[in-house]
Amino acid sequence: MLINNKHCKSIWLHPEDPGKVQTFDQRKLPFKVEIVDITTPADAFEAIRSMLVRGAPLIGATGAFGLYLAAYHFTSSEETDFSGYISTWHRKLLSSRPTAVNLQWALDRVSEKINRSESPEVAVASALKEVENILREEIAMSEMIGRFGLEIIRSISKKKRGEPVNILTHCNAGWIACIDYGTATAPIYLAKENAISVHVWVDETRPRNQGARLTAWELAENDIPHHLITDNAGGHLMQQGLVDVVIVGSDRTTRNGDVANKIGTYLKALAANDNNIPFYVALPSSTIDWNTYDGLRNIPIEERSEEEVLTVEGQDGDRIVSVNISHQETRAVNYGFDVTPARLITGLITERGVCNADEKSLLKLFPEKI
Amino acid sequence: MLINNKHCKSIWLHPEDPGKVQTFDQRKLPFKVEIVDITTPADAFEAIRSMLVRGAPLIGATGAFGLYLAAYHFTSSEETDFSGYISTWHRKLLSSRPTAVNLQWALDRVSEKINRSESPEVAVASALKEVENILREEIAMSEMIGRFGLEIIRSISKKKRGEPVNILTHCNAGWIACIDYGTATAPIYLAKENAISVHVWVDETRPRNQGARLTAWELAENDIPHHLITDNAGGHLMQQGLVDVVIVGSDRTTRNGDVANKIGTYLKALAANDNNIPFYVALPSSTIDWNTYDGLRNIPIEERSEEEVLTVEGQDGDRIVSVNISHQETRAVNYGFDVTPARLITGLITERGVCNADEKSLLKLFPEKI
Repeated sequence: MLINNKHCKSIWLHPEDPGKVQTFDQRKLPFKVEIVDITTPADAFEAIRSMLVRGAPLIGATGAFGLYLAAYHFTSSEETDFSGYISTWHRKLLSSRPTAVNLQWALDRVSEKINRSESPEVAVASALKEVENILREEIAMSEMIGRFGLEIIRSISKKKRGEPVNILTHCNAGWIACIDYGTATAPIYLAKENAISVHVWVDETRPRNQGARLTAWELAENDIPHHLITDNAGGHLMQQGLVDVVIVGSDRTTRNGDVANKIGTYLKALAANDNNIPFYVALPSSTIDWNTYDGLRNIPIEERSEEEVLTVEGQDGDRIVSVNISHQETRAVNYGFDVTPARLITGLITERGVCNADEKSLLKLFPEKI
Repeated sequence: MLINNKHCKSIWLHPEDPGKVQTFDQRKLPFKVEIVDITTPADAFEAIRSMLVRGAPLIGATGAFGLYLAAYHFTSSEETDFSGYISTWHRKLLSSRPTAVNLQWALDRVSEKINRSESPEVAVASALKEVENILREEIAMSEMIGRFGLEIIRSISKKKRGEPVNILTHCNAGWIACIDYGTATAPIYLAKENAISVHVWVDETRPRNQGARLTAWELAENDIPHHLITDNAGGHLMQQGLVDVVIVGSDRTTRNGDVANKIGTYLKALAANDNNIPFYVALPSSTIDWNTYDGLRNIPIEERSEEEVLTVEGQDGDRIVSVNISHQETRAVNYGFDVTPARLITGLITERGVCNADEKSLLKLFPEKI
């Protein structure tokens, strides 16, 4: 999508140096658009861990690039055991964030290609090809999610006789969290391309404010009408008829359609349900954990640093500063995600179509998983 | 309650100067504990409008003091029409905040005493006496709310065999929002006095962070165990069995038991309902609007400045600074309150007892309103 009217992807191989991957430092957005180099698997690990990159598809892609970089730099390292080196980095990269399932999926894919190669040199080429496949597939998935989600928006737009469709979204499941188009935002960008009038309510999304910082910014860069709201406001907007549809992303989806997504998603699903507003989750199937049922019991929820709750980062003049929002002795607890039970979800928007949030419906779209 | 181990009330007449009222500047808490003088009705108006004071009971008390100050200073002004002057200030003070019903209630009480007085001098004494009655009654109401709410906590504590009772609260319905004890916090303070172990989850409460700034601070000053959480986190905590009861305050309660309270309250009520967790609203009857049914349709919801959403105030070293949390071109919408429908409320904790959130049950406690 666009940044300063220039088309960008969220991660890419350096065009002249195949030992270097580049991405945006999302911790500085929207205040600074800064491109950073990832040159080692340790850089990739740190980029994921520190949330320099975030969003399930981008985390997967960064992990995949990390494993490619491990293979690439093996020859110039002092290591001698190639497969041991790769599997150590596989494990290490996998440990960078606990919740996102398609990090594992992406690492497995690249690992398999590396392990099947007869030499480290072949492995490097093979790993890169697989990373490129992953990127291409992720973009294609976002586009397909966009097309299927577009029909939902189009149908609401028709009912409203072309009045703007009010879409509420939480956190950032935007193009910057993916490779391009995004997941929850893909239908929105395609609506714009198809001249369907939309307006987006952007949840701030404390504690890290990905809505305020990333979603509002990327919508502005792509000329989509929107307003920022606090995480507290969505229920009231829904009660007052000011929301037509909720579309969010997913960090992990269970086989029975439960969705782990950014903390607070569950509260919006409850409000949508209470006000008969459709609640959709847009997700590439790479985020489906086919081996897990019952998200409430079985998805581990990352507990993050209390600092994220105790502080807010923002701009004070030209400086990016972090301010303490409570008394210095206050302590906090910080869960990163919550689980929205399938019963509260109107539909899952996948790259193969929209389905109910249950195992049977998912398996109709993905019969190979039966 | 305590500040630095010294017992304080939230507003008081200056002990040596009856033309001066004092209160804390709540916009600077918890970073600075600053006492400010209110010497004119215009000061009182501005204190309410600018949220130097906030909380329904304290707003009412400040308005009442404002009308008293109008009477007090009339003689030294150039005005000649006493009753016109009083009624102008009555209207002006009433316009300072749109949602709180007991501002009207408090102003009406003081106005009536003034209007019945045979001279401005008598009116001053009579107004002050009525303000003091209001303060005394508010404190007594908080204490009674505390006693009735205490029994709810005591009963949960027994079921948990003395394990800490986990209470979630939203915004600040604490003693600093009232005159003393608070409303939602009164049962908590009385639990502490009665050696019942409690732990409080404090919702940050964006956009103005009254939870992070005021509730966490006053709980700490009064030695109540607590943790700060984001507004997004409560649903997850409830799903995981980490909340035993929710207690919030009310800015306005309709005759049928709908509750207008700080934006986001409704979302917590939905989550409590979804997880079979009792959801109580603690309220002095002065916040009941006996003339209004159906809060969703009939309670006007204050739309406040977008700046509150676009910025967060906090401490950066020794400075209190306001940082922009989104791109400078982002626009926001800021509703101050939402309405929790009576059906989601387990009980209303009033100064006369706990009742179901419906007209019949309220009228049993307040038969004079039939």
